[in-house]
Amino acid sequence: MSAANNNEKEVTIYDIAAALNISAATVSRGLKNHPAIRQTTKDRIFAQAERMGYRFNTFARNLRTKRTYTIGVIVPRLNSMFMSDVLAGMEKISNEAGYELIISQSLETMEKEKKNAATMFNNRVDGVLVSLAYTTTDIDHFRRFIDKNIPLIFFDRAFEHPHCPNVVIDNHKAAYEMTTHLIRQGCRRIVHIAGHLNRDVYALRLKGFQEALADNGITFDEDALIVNNLGIADGVLAAQHMLSLPERPDAVFAANDTCAVACMQELKRNGLRVPDDVRVAGFNNDPIATVVEPNLTTIDYRGHEMGEVAAKTLINLLNGVGDLQAAAIVLRHHLIIRDSTQRKKLTEHENKNN
Amino acid sequence: MSAANNNEKEVTIYDIAAALNISAATVSRGLKNHPAIRQTTKDRIFAQAERMGYRFNTFARNLRTKRTYTIGVIVPRLNSMFMSDVLAGMEKISNEAGYELIISQSLETMEKEKKNAATMFNNRVDGVLVSLAYTTTDIDHFRRFIDKNIPLIFFDRAFEHPHCPNVVIDNHKAAYEMTTHLIRQGCRRIVHIAGHLNRDVYALRLKGFQEALADNGITFDEDALIVNNLGIADGVLAAQHMLSLPERPDAVFAANDTCAVACMQELKRNGLRVPDDVRVAGFNNDPIATVVEPNLTTIDYRGHEMGEVAAKTLINLLNGVGDLQAAAIVLRHHLIIRDSTQRKKLTEHENKNN
Repeated sequence: MSAANNNEKEVTIYDIAAALNISAATVSRGLKNHPAIRQTTKDRIFAQAERMGYRFNTFARNLRTKRTYTIGVIVPRLNSMFMSDVLAGMEKISNEAGYELIISQSLETMEKEKKNAATMFNNRVDGVLVSLAYTTTDIDHFRRFIDKNIPLIFFDRAFEHPHCPNVVIDNHKAAYEMTTHLIRQGCRRIVHIAGHLNRDVYALRLKGFQEALADNGITFDEDALIVNNLGIADGVLAAQHMLSLPERPDAVFAANDTCAVACMQELKRNGLRVPDDVRVAGFNNDPIATVVEPNLTTIDYRGHEMGEVAAKTLINLLNGVGDLQAAAIVLRHHLIIRDSTQRKKLTEHENKNN
Repeated sequence: MSAANNNEKEVTIYDIAAALNISAATVSRGLKNHPAIRQTTKDRIFAQAERMGYRFNTFARNLRTKRTYTIGVIVPRLNSMFMSDVLAGMEKISNEAGYELIISQSLETMEKEKKNAATMFNNRVDGVLVSLAYTTTDIDHFRRFIDKNIPLIFFDRAFEHPHCPNVVIDNHKAAYEMTTHLIRQGCRRIVHIAGHLNRDVYALRLKGFQEALADNGITFDEDALIVNNLGIADGVLAAQHMLSLPERPDAVFAANDTCAVACMQELKRNGLRVPDDVRVAGFNNDPIATVVEPNLTTIDYRGHEMGEVAAKTLINLLNGVGDLQAAAIVLRHHLIIRDSTQRKKLTEHENKNN
C-alpha cells in the first residue's frame, strides 16, 4: 500500500527523496525548477511526486507570501445568462494568472452582501470583484477592504469611490441611443421599464431615456415609467399596465431582455401586433432576443469581455502594475436593431409573392 | 490614523485589548463567544474588532482543523443557463454551511480539466464537485482525491466509480418518455441529435431513444442519428441534414434546448410548419423553450435542485454523516409537452372565428 493511500499522512519531499534515493534538498530544488538540477532528474522527481500524491504546498507558499491567490467575486444572482458570461470571462483570466475564484451571491439583498463581504475578508482574498445587490444603499461593508488596500473593483452595477475602479458600459448613452431609435421610428408615447433606481445601471438608463425624450421635444410622463424587478412576471404586469392606459403607448423599452420579452408576449396575447401596434426594445442581448418573434431590438454588451477586463484590472493592481486612480473602464456597447422595432423589409421570397 | 488604515500591520487581539483596556485573554474568549464573558463585554469587543478591521482568523483556524472550508467545483462551461442554476443552488447550500466555492471551468477539454483538478488539489479543497468535459475519456486525474479520501461527487455528466456518488437524473428514462410521446403523436421517422457519446448523459439519452423505437417496432436508422456539440450552428446544420434526406423526418428530438430551437428555426426558415410538418423536442427546459414559437416540448430538470443536492451530499460526507457507498442520487425529471410537438387546441377566441 503506497503512502498515497493513507489519508492521515501527508507525502513530504523526504518521502520522495527516499523513494528516488536522492537528497531532500535536490527534491526541493527540483520541484522549484531550480536551474542547478538536471532536467532528467527533475522529470524523475515530478513523476515520483505525482505517483505518490504529493501536494505542492500552495498553502505554505501562501503563508510565506501573505497572498492566498484567491479573488472574491460577489454577484447579485449566479443564475443569470449575463452573469454566467461575466464569470466565464473572469475564470479564464484568473486561471491563466494562477488565481482561483471564490464566488458568492447576494441574492439581491444588502444584508446577504454584507455577510459575503465579511466571509471574503476573513478568508483573506487578495482582491474583490463586486456587482451590487438591488437593495444596497451604501458600501460601508466594503470599507475594511479599502482600509487595508485590498483592491476592490465594481463591475456592471457599480459605485463611485476614489479607491475602487469601475468596469462598466455607458448605460446613459446606450439608453439614449435606444430611445432615439424608437423616436426615429415615429414613436411618441414610449414606456420605460426600469430596475431598482438605487442601482446606477438602471438610474443611468432612465436618465438616457428621459434626455432623449427632452432632446426630441417629448414630455416625460410619470405614467410612462414602470419600476420593478425586471423578471418575467414583472414584464406581464407592465404589459397589462400599458393596456390600461387611456392613451395606448406606441413603444416600450425595458432595462433587460427577460422583462422585454415577457412584456412583448403578453402584448401579443392581447392581440397587439409587434412592431406595427407597439414596438418593443430590451437590453443585454440575451439568447432569448433572437428566439422571440419578432426578434428583439436590444443593447448588446459582452459579459465575457466585462469579466475578462474586471479580472485583468484586479490582477494588474495585485501585481503593482495597475493604477487605482483610474475611475472607470468603460466598455463598448452596440445598439442591435431587429424586427421588434422596425418593420421587416420584404425578403426576396415575399417580394415575389406580392 | 487607526491601525486599520495601515495595510502592513495586521490588527491583533492585543490591539483590541489595549483599545478597550481589558486583557487579551478576555478579547480572545469574547471573540469565541465564550460563556464566561458577559454579553455587554462581547458586544464592545466585537464592535471594536469591526472598527479596527480585525480579521477573524479563518486562515489560522483552517491550519488547526486541517480543513480549508472550501469546495472545488469543476464544470464544462460557466456560461450555460443550466450550469448557472446549478451553481446558484450549490452556493446557497455551501454558504449556509460555512463553505466557500472555488469554481473553475474545463472549457470542454480533458486537458484543462486535468489542470483544474491539480489546482484544486494543491489548494487543498475539502471536497470536489465535478461535471465532466466533452473530451474526458478517463478519471485518472481525479485519483489523487480518491486516494486521499477527499470526497468527490460527479453531478449531471457523471462517471461511475465505487468511491464517487453521482447526482443525476434518469437520462435513459427521460429520453424514452420523450420518444414515446413523439411516437404517440404519429411520428415514425424521428431524428435524434446527441452530444458527445463519451458523456453518459448523451449516451443514455440515445439509448432511451433507441429503446423506445424498438419497443414500438420502429427500426433505428443510422441516418437518423446526428452527433455534434449541441450549439446553435450545430442545430442549423442538423436541420439542413434533415432537409437533405430522401425521406423527410417527421420529428426531431435534440439532447438540449439550444440545439432544438436553432434546428426548429432553420426548419421554419425553409418553409416547414411546426408541429404540422415536423415535430421538435428538446431537453433542459431553458428559458428559450417558452419564448420560441411554437413553445418547445422538452424535459424539465432543475439545475438549482441538482446543485443543492450535490453540495448537501458533499457536506454530509465532510461532516461524517454521509455514505460514500451511495452510488447515485437520481433526481426527478418531467416531460413538458408544448405546442412544438402537439397541435394546439383551439382557444375560445379561435373557436368563435371558425
